[in-house]
Amino acid sequence: MKAAILSVGTEILFGQIVNTNTVFLSKQLQELGVDLMYHMTVGDNPLRLKEHLAELYKDCDLILTTGGLGPTEDDLTKETIAEYFGTENKERPDQVEILMNRFKMMRREPSPNNIKQAYFPVGAEVLPNPNGTAPGFFLEKDGKMIFAMPGPPREMEPMFLNYVRPKLLDMQNAHLYYRIVRTYDIGESNLETVLLPLIDGQTDPTYATYCAAYESTLRVASKRPSMEEAVAAVEEGIEKVKELCGDHIYSTDNEELSHLVLRTLLERRITLSCAESMTAGGFSNAVTTYPGISEIFDRGLTTYSNRAKMDELGVSAESLEKYSAVSEEVAREMAEGLYKKTGSDICISVTGYAGPDGEEVGLYYVGLCVKGDTKVFKHRSRPQGREYIRNNAVREMFLDIYKTVIR
Amino acid sequence: MKAAILSVGTEILFGQIVNTNTVFLSKQLQELGVDLMYHMTVGDNPLRLKEHLAELYKDCDLILTTGGLGPTEDDLTKETIAEYFGTENKERPDQVEILMNRFKMMRREPSPNNIKQAYFPVGAEVLPNPNGTAPGFFLEKDGKMIFAMPGPPREMEPMFLNYVRPKLLDMQNAHLYYRIVRTYDIGESNLETVLLPLIDGQTDPTYATYCAAYESTLRVASKRPSMEEAVAAVEEGIEKVKELCGDHIYSTDNEELSHLVLRTLLERRITLSCAESMTAGGFSNAVTTYPGISEIFDRGLTTYSNRAKMDELGVSAESLEKYSAVSEEVAREMAEGLYKKTGSDICISVTGYAGPDGEEVGLYYVGLCVKGDTKVFKHRSRPQGREYIRNNAVREMFLDIYKTVIR
Repeated sequence: MKAAILSVGTEILFGQIVNTNTVFLSKQLQELGVDLMYHMTVGDNPLRLKEHLAELYKDCDLILTTGGLGPTEDDLTKETIAEYFGTENKERPDQVEILMNRFKMMRREPSPNNIKQAYFPVGAEVLPNPNGTAPGFFLEKDGKMIFAMPGPPREMEPMFLNYVRPKLLDMQNAHLYYRIVRTYDIGESNLETVLLPLIDGQTDPTYATYCAAYESTLRVASKRPSMEEAVAAVEEGIEKVKELCGDHIYSTDNEELSHLVLRTLLERRITLSCAESMTAGGFSNAVTTYPGISEIFDRGLTTYSNRAKMDELGVSAESLEKYSAVSEEVAREMAEGLYKKTGSDICISVTGYAGPDGEEVGLYYVGLCVKGDTKVFKHRSRPQGREYIRNNAVREMFLDIYKTVIR
Repeated sequence: MKAAILSVGTEILFGQIVNTNTVFLSKQLQELGVDLMYHMTVGDNPLRLKEHLAELYKDCDLILTTGGLGPTEDDLTKETIAEYFGTENKERPDQVEILMNRFKMMRREPSPNNIKQAYFPVGAEVLPNPNGTAPGFFLEKDGKMIFAMPGPPREMEPMFLNYVRPKLLDMQNAHLYYRIVRTYDIGESNLETVLLPLIDGQTDPTYATYCAAYESTLRVASKRPSMEEAVAAVEEGIEKVKELCGDHIYSTDNEELSHLVLRTLLERRITLSCAESMTAGGFSNAVTTYPGISEIFDRGLTTYSNRAKMDELGVSAESLEKYSAVSEEVAREMAEGLYKKTGSDICISVTGYAGPDGEEVGLYYVGLCVKGDTKVFKHRSRPQGREYIRNNAVREMFLDIYKTVIR
């Protein structure tokens, strides 16, 4: 199957909207083993749209369109496709009813234009859109196939996943299953090297490494005639991966590190407080993205000035003087002072240089006091700017907790 | 001038890279008044590339390509373009020298393939690339123009700005100037309504509103035969905008609100501390993105639990009991307790409901104690999820400081 993605919309053409649909669909088609030949964007212009349908069908048998299904005058994708396929749009009574019910629920009156959204090319299969008023559709003729989907990603993505993807798998008589493995303390190229016995000459399952923020991830995927076979192939693949680099894996279920740490602390009722200098609330902010974390998170202190470190945490003037605020000793005193103050099971501290200036930019210490027992970890982030360094430190704080308390 | 953007690269086609080049170039062409007809992406495939050059030139007289200028086997953009324009690639001695010097500076040996990068279509104007080894070029024949640029944004963007943009302005005999106006407490559609006398029937300068995160912005732009005229037209336009909605403008120089607030506090040596509940370090984190802010920022306390609010800030058990943690009274006691503890000129507090559950999700109070004098502001964010609400609150905290201390 050779495919093209055709995006319709002047606002994409003018750069007012970033075309995330194309990225999403490209990855999905790649996964499904569909050969992708082109991305194309045209404005809301029926003539050019029709011309380029013809052009793309020269090389492709499948086109996925996004956008132009709305109720306004310039939404003409449906009319143009019908014309190209030599058919016409007709009102579909079932779709009129769905549309009317939807408007009733929203307590809005449909405009005459809205009724257009219940018209479809004769012979089209309608793809429901529970997240908006514009359904999509599938049309096929003489070996040329088209899926027309709405433009907003929150409508398009579920439509693709729920209707288009299964249909494309059906056409190939295949089922797809995959799992994402998350790792720590191993770069993408090292991960690839370690997994070379699996990656080299791979057929099914496939192993693909990705470089995500502050970590490498691995996708193990299988496409088989039955879902049972696909699942079994992936599970077997995951076991082989574990044999090769199990020490670097923290999740085989695509669970994010901070999520895994916070979920585990919450389950075990382990209480937490933090004292931050360099990250200045970044860790505390990350902790509290987790709903319900107030049950175990007591407080976070951003002790930015030396005075605040002394006042709030009892860090000694001598240590600040002798070792400077960025030192193993001060990190230790911060964590221990926090424990004295709060009694939280885990008291974590961080102090370091986020830059932009200075020789030691990227150096930081994490103090970790677990029920009174304190360790200090020395870290060095690549000096890729203040934001990078601070985010890197937040990640490492979660990792230090993971390694010390959870692993 | 009618134009298309043609991106070359299999990694874009497969969704491995988000095509930010297209967004950048679309906005730039839009600014320059060039009519953009298409975006197209093809893989590293000379045949399909050539076909689609021909196809795009049916409607367009200008094509901008990105990608495929590298030294590897599959980088064939240059060869394909030369062929399409009926010419050939020849070694350019001046470019060989530049390339050799570059490799000398990097202390690397050029591979035979690298020499390819000093070949250009006969008649092409070379566009220098100080940020990489692949220069771009400009070629024109029979009214068809092409700019070929490298794929990496950090090479392409400066090349566009330094060479392509001036050339496109020259072709139109024009100079472009614009300023971005930033606003508060006014939605995009209201801003548009207020500015209708300027927007309606606009020619030059042009007024375009945008909906940014938590605010509306306005771009005032002018394209004139001389830069002096363009600047004068924009300045005059800005004065008219101020007459219509000056009360909602905080910057006419595209300075971000938090940046403006922190820069001003730093200039005036006004010290700052914060006590956060709902935003839990988000404000403190935003403050400390500003380099050098440690001179005035003392500390931030994330008092998440009620106990922390009492311990750290002296909030009374009675107020917590009687009014709940999310109340005007507790916001006030948090700010005043922080002032007692730190003596910072500005002590700001926040307490509220970030959700996800509960009837009052989105409600929060900001306490602002300026040298002992405390006001409390009640805010209500749209309940668009925990992250939205927390970020919205951080923005409003800066805005409350702006309105009270700076404006």
